[in-house]
Amino acid sequence: MKAIVFDGHLRYTGVYPKPKLKQNEALIRISMAGICNTDIEIIKGYMGFKGIIGHEFVGIVEKIDGNDQRLLEKRVVGDINCSCGICSYCLKGMKTHCPERKTLGISNKDGAFAEYITLPVKNLFEVPENIADESAVFTEPLAAAFEISEQVHVKPTDSILVLGDGKLGVLCAFALRLTQADVVLAGKHKAKIAVAKRQGLNTVEVTELSSFLKTYDIVVEATGAPDGLELAMQLVKPGGKIVLKTTAASGKEINLAPVVINEIQIIGSRCGTFEPALRGISSGLIDVGPLVTAIYKPEQAEKAFERAGDGDSLKVLFDFRLSAHNETWLQQPMNTP
Amino acid sequence: MKAIVFDGHLRYTGVYPKPKLKQNEALIRISMAGICNTDIEIIKGYMGFKGIIGHEFVGIVEKIDGNDQRLLEKRVVGDINCSCGICSYCLKGMKTHCPERKTLGISNKDGAFAEYITLPVKNLFEVPENIADESAVFTEPLAAAFEISEQVHVKPTDSILVLGDGKLGVLCAFALRLTQADVVLAGKHKAKIAVAKRQGLNTVEVTELSSFLKTYDIVVEATGAPDGLELAMQLVKPGGKIVLKTTAASGKEINLAPVVINEIQIIGSRCGTFEPALRGISSGLIDVGPLVTAIYKPEQAEKAFERAGDGDSLKVLFDFRLSAHNETWLQQPMNTP
Repeated sequence: MKAIVFDGHLRYTGVYPKPKLKQNEALIRISMAGICNTDIEIIKGYMGFKGIIGHEFVGIVEKIDGNDQRLLEKRVVGDINCSCGICSYCLKGMKTHCPERKTLGISNKDGAFAEYITLPVKNLFEVPENIADESAVFTEPLAAAFEISEQVHVKPTDSILVLGDGKLGVLCAFALRLTQADVVLAGKHKAKIAVAKRQGLNTVEVTELSSFLKTYDIVVEATGAPDGLELAMQLVKPGGKIVLKTTAASGKEINLAPVVINEIQIIGSRCGTFEPALRGISSGLIDVGPLVTAIYKPEQAEKAFERAGDGDSLKVLFDFRLSAHNETWLQQPMNTP
Repeated sequence: MKAIVFDGHLRYTGVYPKPKLKQNEALIRISMAGICNTDIEIIKGYMGFKGIIGHEFVGIVEKIDGNDQRLLEKRVVGDINCSCGICSYCLKGMKTHCPERKTLGISNKDGAFAEYITLPVKNLFEVPENIADESAVFTEPLAAAFEISEQVHVKPTDSILVLGDGKLGVLCAFALRLTQADVVLAGKHKAKIAVAKRQGLNTVEVTELSSFLKTYDIVVEATGAPDGLELAMQLVKPGGKIVLKTTAASGKEINLAPVVINEIQIIGSRCGTFEPALRGISSGLIDVGPLVTAIYKPEQAEKAFERAGDGDSLKVLFDFRLSAHNETWLQQPMNTP
């Protein structure tokens, strides 16, 4: 099958072996898949992963090994953490922290930039009919945005700063503003800030933030850069919270004395559950469509990654439908500002 | 009056001007005062403070400027944060974060290693009769230990590691074990570990901790060393909490990706309220007396600081009663292991 592989180099291949279905798993034919910053970090060496990359997808269930066939031929998205189901973390409902977990396209499991993947049936969620494939691929990163509200009591009177105008930053701002808190998105990329603004977000350029020291109850650090935390520490109120989303590969010298003196809380935040994200998109309260910058064929992997990392792009997608059916492809990228 | 001053050098003086009483303040004659790690950091340059150092004290109220004279001639301890009372933090009850605050012996206010101090009357707490001066001086650091339970819901089933066998580490372990959680104190100083053990604490040497990776629900980082946080990150469970007490002056290169991946929370923790600490000592449930390593006259300031920083000492006190009354002084240090 067609697949995009990282084995020290990023490459497209047409001859990768189709995954074998195991017990209680579903075989899913990928329709569309999205490039995440984690994918970009992986091809820089993060996690030491080798194999098919990609973990944001929507697809059709072609086959199920197991008695429960309800999802057969349904359109699904899927939780990327494949947990053991029997350890103390799984039994406490903390399956994303299962020490035996395999993670789609990130750790010990081939990912979603391919014609086919397998996932446990329990990981899958049927996509409501009114969600287009182009929006359904946002379920996983939007779930990560809703994870903030799972971890932190966000109040309608909070003032919140989201640091970082990338895909995840914008999705965090989308999710958090539904609480009716006062949400501002800060970034340094004019094109991305412009997209966020068109979606009704309050925005500010990073350079203007020096007027807002110790201003925010909650700062979401989603810059993807190792110096984002230090900036967040300056902007959060004493007694406030920093939600840390950045998993930059490199370290950085940080003086954490202000965390103690100002009694700041730093909350590491990763994956979330899919239901709130699907409800958010399906209800129309969150419109992710305008965040798609471009759609590429899998054969254009290198070009697509170049585009995804260029600083002006939000979400870049792969369309495996075209690939599978050999349809003509519209070269013109979407939504370029 | 006699005072211990830091002005780039640590020195004792017999001729420091007595503080002037302002409205709603009390003039307090110091009985005893304790050396805190913050004092040791200050004489290394932390906070850029100059003046009389010291903030852990017990004393007698000699004079009050104001109508409420109830505390006159009473034995008191006092909150070290002098807040404005009218800013948004003060009005929310977050007076330790008042941006206008002066802090006794730490920031913009002469401290407690002196015959006399002044403090706002509202900062003072009468010491119950059954608490000796030698124990009353622990009220402030024990309040900082109880601050953990103010910030974090500590459960009776939690497993807790306190990293650091210094004064604050031991006090944190004392306070936390009252929750009936499973508390272990880790350190590298045999003499201090021995004192902790004699007080019934479960102890472990830092070198043995490699067998306990990802074991603890809560890790209290009270090492005073910049590399303590990284060790705490290895020992806390995924989804667990690190309470950060260390305010080391120097920075350190830290890779915070594990905080995100394991969804760890880091909670900066500073000063606490005095009532729980006074109740803990007065009830006899917390016995701080055995933590006194030695008592010195203020004239012996240099020697006392040397002792306090020698790695084997827990609490070192100054006795201003002797100084004031010119009594004979027992040179033999107490409780040396």
